[in-house]
Amino acid sequence: MNSRPNKSHKEENDDSFHKSIAFALILGQCFGLMPVYGIAGPNERSLHFTWKSWRVLYCFLTLIGTFFALIMCIHEIFWDKANIFEITAVIFFGSSFLVHILFLQLALIWPNLMRSWYVVEISMRNYGWPPKLNRRLKIMTSVILTTAAVEHILVVISNLLRSERCRNDNQDIMNFFFVILSYPQVFAVLEYYLWAGILMQIVNLIGTFSWTYIDLFIMLISTSLSLRFQQITQRVERYVETKVADEVLWRALREDYNKLSKLCKKVNEALSSIVLVSFGNNLFFILVQFFNSLRKRDDTLEKVYFFFSFGFLIGRTVCVSLYGAWIHDESQKPLPILNNVSSTVYNTEIRRFILHVCFDSVSLTGKRFFSITRGLILSIAGTIVTYELVLIQFYGYMLEDPNSKNATC
Amino acid sequence: MNSRPNKSHKEENDDSFHKSIAFALILGQCFGLMPVYGIAGPNERSLHFTWKSWRVLYCFLTLIGTFFALIMCIHEIFWDKANIFEITAVIFFGSSFLVHILFLQLALIWPNLMRSWYVVEISMRNYGWPPKLNRRLKIMTSVILTTAAVEHILVVISNLLRSERCRNDNQDIMNFFFVILSYPQVFAVLEYYLWAGILMQIVNLIGTFSWTYIDLFIMLISTSLSLRFQQITQRVERYVETKVADEVLWRALREDYNKLSKLCKKVNEALSSIVLVSFGNNLFFILVQFFNSLRKRDDTLEKVYFFFSFGFLIGRTVCVSLYGAWIHDESQKPLPILNNVSSTVYNTEIRRFILHVCFDSVSLTGKRFFSITRGLILSIAGTIVTYELVLIQFYGYMLEDPNSKNATC
Amino acid sequence: MNSRPNKSHKEENDDSFHKSIAFALILGQCFGLMPVYGIAGPNERSLHFTWKSWRVLYCFLTLIGTFFALIMCIHEIFWDKANIFEITAVIFFGSSFLVHILFLQLALIWPNLMRSWYVVEISMRNYGWPPKLNRRLKIMTSVILTTAAVEHILVVISNLLRSERCRNDNQDIMNFFFVILSYPQVFAVLEYYLWAGILMQIVNLIGTFSWTYIDLFIMLISTSLSLRFQQITQRVERYVETKVADEVLWRALREDYNKLSKLCKKVNEALSSIVLVSFGNNLFFILVQFFNSLRKRDDTLEKVYFFFSFGFLIGRTVCVSLYGAWIHDESQKPLPILNNVSSTVYNTEIRRFILHVCFDSVSLTGKRFFSITRGLILSIAGTIVTYELVLIQFYGYMLEDPNSKNATC
Amino acid sequence: MNSRPNKSHKEENDDSFHKSIAFALILGQCFGLMPVYGIAGPNERSLHFTWKSWRVLYCFLTLIGTFFALIMCIHEIFWDKANIFEITAVIFFGSSFLVHILFLQLALIWPNLMRSWYVVEISMRNYGWPPKLNRRLKIMTSVILTTAAVEHILVVISNLLRSERCRNDNQDIMNFFFVILSYPQVFAVLEYYLWAGILMQIVNLIGTFSWTYIDLFIMLISTSLSLRFQQITQRVERYVETKVADEVLWRALREDYNKLSKLCKKVNEALSSIVLVSFGNNLFFILVQFFNSLRKRDDTLEKVYFFFSFGFLIGRTVCVSLYGAWIHDESQKPLPILNNVSSTVYNTEIRRFILHVCFDSVSLTGKRFFSITRGLILSIAGTIVTYELVLIQFYGYMLEDPNSKNATC
Repeated sequence: MNSRPNKSHKEENDDSFHKSIAFALILGQCFGLMPVYGIAGPNERSLHFTWKSWRVLYCFLTLIGTFFALIMCIHEIFWDKANIFEITAVIFFGSSFLVHILFLQLALIWPNLMRSWYVVEISMRNYGWPPKLNRRLKIMTSVILTTAAVEHILVVISNLLRSERCRNDNQDIMNFFFVILSYPQVFAVLEYYLWAGILMQIVNLIGTFSWTYIDLFIMLISTSLSLRFQQITQRVERYVETKVADEVLWRALREDYNKLSKLCKKVNEALSSIVLVSFGNNLFFILVQFFNSLRKRDDTLEKVYFFFSFGFLIGRTVCVSLYGAWIHDESQKPLPILNNVSSTVYNTEIRRFILHVCFDSVSLTGKRFFSITRGLILSIAGTIVTYELVLIQFYGYMLEDPNSKNATC
Repeated sequence: MNSRPNKSHKEENDDSFHKSIAFALILGQCFGLMPVYGIAGPNERSLHFTWKSWRVLYCFLTLIGTFFALIMCIHEIFWDKANIFEITAVIFFGSSFLVHILFLQLALIWPNLMRSWYVVEISMRNYGWPPKLNRRLKIMTSVILTTAAVEHILVVISNLLRSERCRNDNQDIMNFFFVILSYPQVFAVLEYYLWAGILMQIVNLIGTFSWTYIDLFIMLISTSLSLRFQQITQRVERYVETKVADEVLWRALREDYNKLSKLCKKVNEALSSIVLVSFGNNLFFILVQFFNSLRKRDDTLEKVYFFFSFGFLIGRTVCVSLYGAWIHDESQKPLPILNNVSSTVYNTEIRRFILHVCFDSVSLTGKRFFSITRGLILSIAGTIVTYELVLIQFYGYMLEDPNSKNATC
Repeated sequence: MNSRPNKSHKEENDDSFHKSIAFALILGQCFGLMPVYGIAGPNERSLHFTWKSWRVLYCFLTLIGTFFALIMCIHEIFWDKANIFEITAVIFFGSSFLVHILFLQLALIWPNLMRSWYVVEISMRNYGWPPKLNRRLKIMTSVILTTAAVEHILVVISNLLRSERCRNDNQDIMNFFFVILSYPQVFAVLEYYLWAGILMQIVNLIGTFSWTYIDLFIMLISTSLSLRFQQITQRVERYVETKVADEVLWRALREDYNKLSKLCKKVNEALSSIVLVSFGNNLFFILVQFFNSLRKRDDTLEKVYFFFSFGFLIGRTVCVSLYGAWIHDESQKPLPILNNVSSTVYNTEIRRFILHVCFDSVSLTGKRFFSITRGLILSIAGTIVTYELVLIQFYGYMLEDPNSKNATC
Repeated sequence: MNSRPNKSHKEENDDSFHKSIAFALILGQCFGLMPVYGIAGPNERSLHFTWKSWRVLYCFLTLIGTFFALIMCIHEIFWDKANIFEITAVIFFGSSFLVHILFLQLALIWPNLMRSWYVVEISMRNYGWPPKLNRRLKIMTSVILTTAAVEHILVVISNLLRSERCRNDNQDIMNFFFVILSYPQVFAVLEYYLWAGILMQIVNLIGTFSWTYIDLFIMLISTSLSLRFQQITQRVERYVETKVADEVLWRALREDYNKLSKLCKKVNEALSSIVLVSFGNNLFFILVQFFNSLRKRDDTLEKVYFFFSFGFLIGRTVCVSLYGAWIHDESQKPLPILNNVSSTVYNTEIRRFILHVCFDSVSLTGKRFFSITRGLILSIAGTIVTYELVLIQFYGYMLEDPNSKNATC
């Protein structure tokens, strides 16, 4: 189907998505995500997955830790009456667990996916490498993960300060920090040891990280695909402007678009569970944080921290939605340009191109339950407002409660 | 329209949908559903419906029983103030009644429908029989109906235990079980006899069964149709890959797709009322059960039972939605493949095929009020959350009520 | 565009929509709706509208009466605190006023519209007259208006009985009936006279009638158009089955479809305000009645009356939605049949036909804010449930209020 | 692509959108919006933007003033508990700030946009100038801005009267007016001076104006574009009626449609942020005002003022929605006409035209999150009702509060 031959000799120094994404993947592996080997290798052929490896072991350890924390929280809910804080904890550890499972699954097919990607890259070689893609991905990774780190450090410090302030005289700071503030579900059942607390804290850290990481991951993939579609749109534009009439050129262009669409569908199949978890997670935590935002806070530090954290959450959600919708937007852009094609050059290939763009829309989806488009963002916003208003009515009394569990002391 | 002749000699040992579905239909007939004769016969020509038959009589007896129970509940609501438990009972018996009516209707047209189905099967004979279809349908039937049976037995046992625990000394267990726990609406009006209670219990059993059965039935039909569409998609894929240029082959393929679409529309017309009842039912009972899930339960056994039952309900609903949406998904799959057809083989037949897939989407519908697609599942979930939040606000006080009717004693 | 010549000699005895709708229009004119002359005339050329006529005068008198009642209710709301009963009265008289205005507008363009309709009828003469259309329309008119009359009589009788029961000894029945029960808004401001009460009662009767009448009117129009589309579908089916290959025949068929679509658009432009009022009205009153349905009623007669009235309202709304959606459904039906056209007969005309059906969907709309389709019915139902749940929460205390204005005494 | 040459000599007296919109732009500049030079110039070549200019300086001053007011309100919310009045103030000043920023951005690209517009106008010269466009735009501008002025004056007078009535004896009227009634957020922090109050009042005036102005601006742009689409539709109609078969003429017509679509997309890109702010703003203030409308008002003057103001807000919102949707409506109108084209004239150009109209729909959008269509209006209305009902439940107690801040004294 591809009229140009796959070049047999492969320049190893070439740019490729495999290399662009490597930095982010390595960071992910530090937290037990995506236990695949060869991500720093020179090309996508170095990628391989093996069950008997340290990375998979590490992944399983994080899975076990998260699962344990999850069980503790469910146990609490099952035996005592559920409240919003317990449910939040279950969702938090549950999604962390799920994310690790999903990235393990993804690791299995990652080498193949990268090979498919590379085939498209080869066939689109004459478009050049999307300008600044690599730097762009690196900057996104750095900014988002640094902010996440800052946020996590802030919450730990703030809780330590609070432990210092609120503990009884006969209580250890760390004891108060772990047993009362952070993991009451766990240490109500088990006896408290310092190492256990630290382990729980690591599990928590990994959870926080993986929560941010899936958003980042979706953004990186979306950017890479969107920039490719952009290149095709630009070429369409140039062809239309210079009145290219050669049907062969148009066919090549259409086939590039086809290949890219196919790649998108493959990526979507691999990623759609992760997308679903990401959106579900963000939706839930925005609801919870929004609700918390209504509680009166007297402490300035706490206020600043809270709005920083909430802002980060909303910003990330908006970003992942916009970047996700970018693919769909870019993939639709050739349409109006193709409609402008002069009648003298109009041919069957262009007509097929138009029909393809119209009928077979490309986008990331959440398990095909929803497609990420700009319209989705609006309906998410509407859903948040609606649920929030109802939540306020139902749990509103908690906001007034001076003895609330999370009060300043 | 079909270029291949209908084979005149028919191999009786061939697979056919008629045979695959027979097992499920026989089980259904045990509960008065689908009173048609010949479902275990060798081929679809043995099917016939006759009004003067034991099966129709049995069906009418169940109808009368259910109608009686329904009238009792409506009577209660009309004369006393309605509450959520009475309304649930009305919906339960009402939908059971409706399901029997609808399956009676379906039985009337079933022989014809199976003949239409067989015509498509004949014309798709060269695709082979979808692999493992028969086993698949049998496993689905067994798993779902067994779970339903387990659930029903559990609820009876749990209620019997509760009767033992809660009854006064001068009260019979069965008396308490029937009069107080299970059918207060009925025995408030009529005098209590043991046989009357047992009859009510049978009506109840048939209701529970038919409720599960319609979900199962939709899943079986969906699976059979989806696997057929899958075969067409696979052939499209093969044609595209091997660059089949023969317009006659493509025409035959497109006509097979047409015939299957037509069959789907016929099936949809026959089934759409059942789909509507199924979705309405599930939506309603999820709301009710979700609401009940918030009540504090002290008894571990009761907790386990409740979550088992609720999980079964949700699982069934998700399954029926996903299987239903499968038809639509599969029927759309040829589209991207057809868009990839090489320009050298592109012809009028392929263009017509593309237009057909785009414009005339196939899916099961609930009386054409909604189509079952994956998007629907999301909006059902959204609806459930919204209504649930509002229900909680309105009836929330019931959850706290220690003297609630359904309390442990 | 039409390949068949308009027959110059017109048979006066022919069926035409003008004659089918005459019965309903005459009944409408009894209540001041549609003040056009010649509706009972032999053909649509006898139709004419003139401002200086008794019918227009009658229409203006009803407008003045309704406007007066409306002003009284608004006055009440503006000076006292608004409650749900006052708002209902405003909506009732307001919509009655609006309906009379809209039918006056419609009367202006009715003669032209009927002429356009007749042109289509001429060109579709060789399809024959849709079977039983005339009888069908007459039955629909009779059933709906009779039920409306029964309902109105019931409410008057029930209120008279209540007046008899509840009045003080020194009060006249009619006085109580008019001043306390029926029109407190009016007779709080003006002095009470019997003739004034009777006039108010007539205004009320006209309001009730016009409310039912717009629903009926939409149903009649929808039925007439849908049956025409059905005829085209049937011919498409016949052509496809008999493998008609003559492009001229197909062109004629497509042009008939075009003309009918154009007529639909014209009808829609004339009717869309009426559709908007009808749906808005029904939505509002269902919400109010649904809410009322939750109030405990002790009196059996009142219960029966209430559920009769509520059932009629819901039935009418469902009917108007289903009949309205029928046009859209029928207009889409040629599509799957055309997709099945054998490749040997497939031609440009059929392709254009397919594109037309796909792209330019026909339906009645409410001022183009919404189209009446089957999906709409579901979203209306969803809206009703949502608003109802919220209404119950907000005004729920009214339901418990023993001194409520509408209580039995 | 355009078959007709751009006329090289340009008649300066010709009509152009540049001139039609000048009146509105000059009025906007009085309030610091759109600081571009040459809007009153003879043609679009006189337009230019320069950073070092009095207009930009004025714009920046208004920005600073608005920003200051905004900061004061946020400060209030951050330190005290947020209530609905504070949030309203933040939204008010925030959107005013945003609108000034967005118009500054628009001013940067305005000269270019007008040049693109002019190119389309040149190419559509043979359609003539849309009848009465200039007068229409002027009337819209005058009516809306006058009403806004009247409303603003009314609120100032009414507040002055109230200050006179409510102040203590030892308090200055202006003092009470500024410190207690109008800007408590500001003068709680800063000391009160008369000039400071007057400055705040000017900032307030500019905010009110810019709020109305963006609605007006969208309407003006929409009208101009819609009337152009109308001209194309009219020509399509004439071509179809007179059975124009010349492919060259059809091509020219299609290309005009293309150019207009392209212009719409350009305008949309420039305007979509403004559209988003306009709709967000109107939605929010309708919710707030709707809520306020439920408060009991004893003072007739206040009642009249309130309903005038609320009516203006709703009227403006409906207008901006309807005018915005007009573009989409007009751009779709050629479709049914093209479907009616006689088979003898049907050609490739017409087919491309049809596909273009179907697939590439034109409309104004709010940052592509939503398109302005008639359906949008309905969903906005639904959203308002839903949120309103919930708001009433949550904040309903405020309505009863006799000591409410905004009470008559």
